[in-house]
Amino acid sequence: MSSSDIFIGETIGTAVLILLGGGVCAAVTLKRSKAQNAGWLAITFGWGFAVLTGAYLAGGVSGAHLNPAVTVGLAIEGGTQWSDVPLYFLSQLFGAMIGAVLVWLTYYGQFRAHLTDPEIVAAQPAEEGMVDQKAAPKAGPVLGVFSTGPEIRNAVQNVMTEVIATVVLVLAILTQGLNDDGNGLGTLGALVTALVVVGIGLSLGGPTGYAINPVRDLGPRIVHALLPLPNKGGSDWGYAWVPIVGPLIGGAVAGGIYRIAFA
Amino acid sequence: MSSSDIFIGETIGTAVLILLGGGVCAAVTLKRSKAQNAGWLAITFGWGFAVLTGAYLAGGVSGAHLNPAVTVGLAIEGGTQWSDVPLYFLSQLFGAMIGAVLVWLTYYGQFRAHLTDPEIVAAQPAEEGMVDQKAAPKAGPVLGVFSTGPEIRNAVQNVMTEVIATVVLVLAILTQGLNDDGNGLGTLGALVTALVVVGIGLSLGGPTGYAINPVRDLGPRIVHALLPLPNKGGSDWGYAWVPIVGPLIGGAVAGGIYRIAFA
Amino acid sequence: MSSSDIFIGETIGTAVLILLGGGVCAAVTLKRSKAQNAGWLAITFGWGFAVLTGAYLAGGVSGAHLNPAVTVGLAIEGGTQWSDVPLYFLSQLFGAMIGAVLVWLTYYGQFRAHLTDPEIVAAQPAEEGMVDQKAAPKAGPVLGVFSTGPEIRNAVQNVMTEVIATVVLVLAILTQGLNDDGNGLGTLGALVTALVVVGIGLSLGGPTGYAINPVRDLGPRIVHALLPLPNKGGSDWGYAWVPIVGPLIGGAVAGGIYRIAFA
Amino acid sequence: MSSSDIFIGETIGTAVLILLGGGVCAAVTLKRSKAQNAGWLAITFGWGFAVLTGAYLAGGVSGAHLNPAVTVGLAIEGGTQWSDVPLYFLSQLFGAMIGAVLVWLTYYGQFRAHLTDPEIVAAQPAEEGMVDQKAAPKAGPVLGVFSTGPEIRNAVQNVMTEVIATVVLVLAILTQGLNDDGNGLGTLGALVTALVVVGIGLSLGGPTGYAINPVRDLGPRIVHALLPLPNKGGSDWGYAWVPIVGPLIGGAVAGGIYRIAFA
Repeated sequence: MSSSDIFIGETIGTAVLILLGGGVCAAVTLKRSKAQNAGWLAITFGWGFAVLTGAYLAGGVSGAHLNPAVTVGLAIEGGTQWSDVPLYFLSQLFGAMIGAVLVWLTYYGQFRAHLTDPEIVAAQPAEEGMVDQKAAPKAGPVLGVFSTGPEIRNAVQNVMTEVIATVVLVLAILTQGLNDDGNGLGTLGALVTALVVVGIGLSLGGPTGYAINPVRDLGPRIVHALLPLPNKGGSDWGYAWVPIVGPLIGGAVAGGIYRIAFA
Repeated sequence: MSSSDIFIGETIGTAVLILLGGGVCAAVTLKRSKAQNAGWLAITFGWGFAVLTGAYLAGGVSGAHLNPAVTVGLAIEGGTQWSDVPLYFLSQLFGAMIGAVLVWLTYYGQFRAHLTDPEIVAAQPAEEGMVDQKAAPKAGPVLGVFSTGPEIRNAVQNVMTEVIATVVLVLAILTQGLNDDGNGLGTLGALVTALVVVGIGLSLGGPTGYAINPVRDLGPRIVHALLPLPNKGGSDWGYAWVPIVGPLIGGAVAGGIYRIAFA
Repeated sequence: MSSSDIFIGETIGTAVLILLGGGVCAAVTLKRSKAQNAGWLAITFGWGFAVLTGAYLAGGVSGAHLNPAVTVGLAIEGGTQWSDVPLYFLSQLFGAMIGAVLVWLTYYGQFRAHLTDPEIVAAQPAEEGMVDQKAAPKAGPVLGVFSTGPEIRNAVQNVMTEVIATVVLVLAILTQGLNDDGNGLGTLGALVTALVVVGIGLSLGGPTGYAINPVRDLGPRIVHALLPLPNKGGSDWGYAWVPIVGPLIGGAVAGGIYRIAFA
Repeated sequence: MSSSDIFIGETIGTAVLILLGGGVCAAVTLKRSKAQNAGWLAITFGWGFAVLTGAYLAGGVSGAHLNPAVTVGLAIEGGTQWSDVPLYFLSQLFGAMIGAVLVWLTYYGQFRAHLTDPEIVAAQPAEEGMVDQKAAPKAGPVLGVFSTGPEIRNAVQNVMTEVIATVVLVLAILTQGLNDDGNGLGTLGALVTALVVVGIGLSLGGPTGYAINPVRDLGPRIVHALLPLPNKGGSDWGYAWVPIVGPLIGGAVAGGIYRIAFA
């Protein structure tokens, strides 16, 4: 696979993944959205079909990792060369940031309406520097459109949850190489992966909001920090390492399990 | 593809698309419907399976564009001849109008019960000529069965939202040509496209109700204007250009991205 | 296809269709069910996956019509011999009755708890002979587990709704013969048909509860009339012809459209 | 198939099945979960996609039974050797216990928050030895994360419901051998089976919570008895035989029906 294929496929695929994934969070969260309060099932199906769309677009170009945890798992398994890993990571992060900006453009008016609503502004957590991170219950409603946050803030527990959920995801993707003769994501494989992601969201998303992908969290968090949103509150950088470290460990563990048990 | 294949496939396919898509809006909106208030997830899955049914019916006949934005994207990509484009457009518009009439026939009693309910009649927006379009909050409940309307009325924002959502749709359809060896919509391709449409609705539908298809909006809006419905209110022609222009731009942008990045 | 294949496939397939389809109505309706009030989306997905399961079981045996309207459509299209039609009909009706009995056995305790609950008994419609059919608003909660009933009782409207919804179903099944090389329901075809049925339910089910299948309504209605349920109320025989006649017309119309437009 | 393939595939596959299946019960039940009260549709789709993920992972290794009832059905049908049955059973039970422990680790903080909430503790059923099993209405909220419990406690009815639901499941899996050329679960077969399980949950899950799998109930129940959870209440061993016996009978009946009707 050429470097430009990796760059184009991962950037476009991850951008679409985050556009649709962040989009459903905006749709369900923000005032003046037709989907406000559509519920957890809407969020989990929205993220699943975000994966489907991104994987479908990028599958034939870059293999559609769209996720550093997947890239790590595939590098350990042997399907991806370690020398390609940095380019995968950077393209995925770049795509995730583009996707987050596109969510903002799509919901431009809704963000403004939401963030200038007096009741909602009063309920926002204060600036990051001013709060005790341990006491902060979870990401505020607008940060939650961009990044994940735990319901109960405890680093060990939160990492453990992200590791377990990511192992399931990456194992399923590695197995697909077994089931689908190994030339990247076929269409049916993309569909199954998408529904596995719906399942992970429904089943394992309750504690931390299932990042299961470092750039899915980091890219939009950077964009949240940069965007000129009024009353947006802090970007909760104190938690930012958890959805990076947890999924990377999970991807590596899955790669190891695959090599030991399935190969 | 012969002209009669295009005409038959696009007319029947688009009619079924709008029958089921408009149908779910009627089902969820109108009084005395068993599905009243079934929620946003019902609407988005309803539209997705409407796409599935229409694409499945017309796939082997006309390639199942069912959407001028798709036709424009395919013409730019090269899969459809520009000389066929006018016939695609007209067949799609004709089919969309038939579909909207069928929704009315299917929900005949529910429309009558709904529109003669004193509370609902009082809440209807006044005739179009009498209202300030900017102040009108959104399409009234019965117009919403036919056409889309924005939650926040701002032409630039609304067009931007429709462009972004349509780019995702048309890119996915063009990529399918890549994945599925290029002879129109296969069955699995139709299924993936349908679930992508569910995803677009869940994720990007919040601001404008995701027309992402000029005839999906224009055809039923014309039918709304013509039908002898009591107390139906205006057809909001001031907004009608947005779901035409936005999706057409989106289809063209997707065609361009595809040629540059994927071809 | 041999007579015993038709009999076995259609009986078992339709029994499973009605067991799961009637089952979801029982699950959502009856007291002391974990799924009580799970909503319209649960009902429509439940019926869709009922079709999937029945079609998957019977596909390789009898072609999985499971529905006289489908049999009529296929007979007109030419895929089924007219001489086999009576056996298809009888097997389907027999299977539907078995399925309804199985629903009763599965929810035995829930039926008893529901029907002896004082509040629910008081709300039941009186015996059929004692009520003005026009005034009866809809099927009572327990009859609704077995058979369909309209929200607005008007024979012409109700038949029209059933005809339109059945045309969509049968056209999709006939087209599948086109898409899938014609040897009965393949696995992917069964899946698409199931999701089309979910779509029909979401979009066109609001007025009459989408029988779209004569035996789906008649078989369970006969069982309702025969079962020794306390306080069960009448079986609403005055409406029973509508979900027989409407779907049969719809199947014939679909067969005709297919021959004219697609063949 | 080698013994180590059976052991590895069934252990990992069943562990993932129970991790995701028990996970969705935890997600919907426990305090401080983002998915609390997400509803019955979330539970049924969560279990379905749990089956999909487990079957996808183990399909190419052990054939992905993941369920003693399936193993019994396949042994009667002839696809599995009786001498392999004990190893299948033990691996499945072992995997189910691992899965239940993983649910506990994933939701560690939520379990603690839930079980030390004063209101919830007061509402827990007393220790098993102290209650009249007949009067106990159903499994308490935390036992329900692990094992099934009936809404109406009546051994005959509960067994009957589990038998009927399991017959549907196992018949569908056996038929797949017919549809999919018999070399274990293909990808499309795993998807159909998963959606059949969603359907069984929606349609037949109301009375007993659809164990339809002896180890799905027994494995987590043992883990519930062993885990150091505060205020966890009894493990309701008086009911434990029902979701073992019912599904085993159901698997055997399905194997018999298959041999008589389909083979």
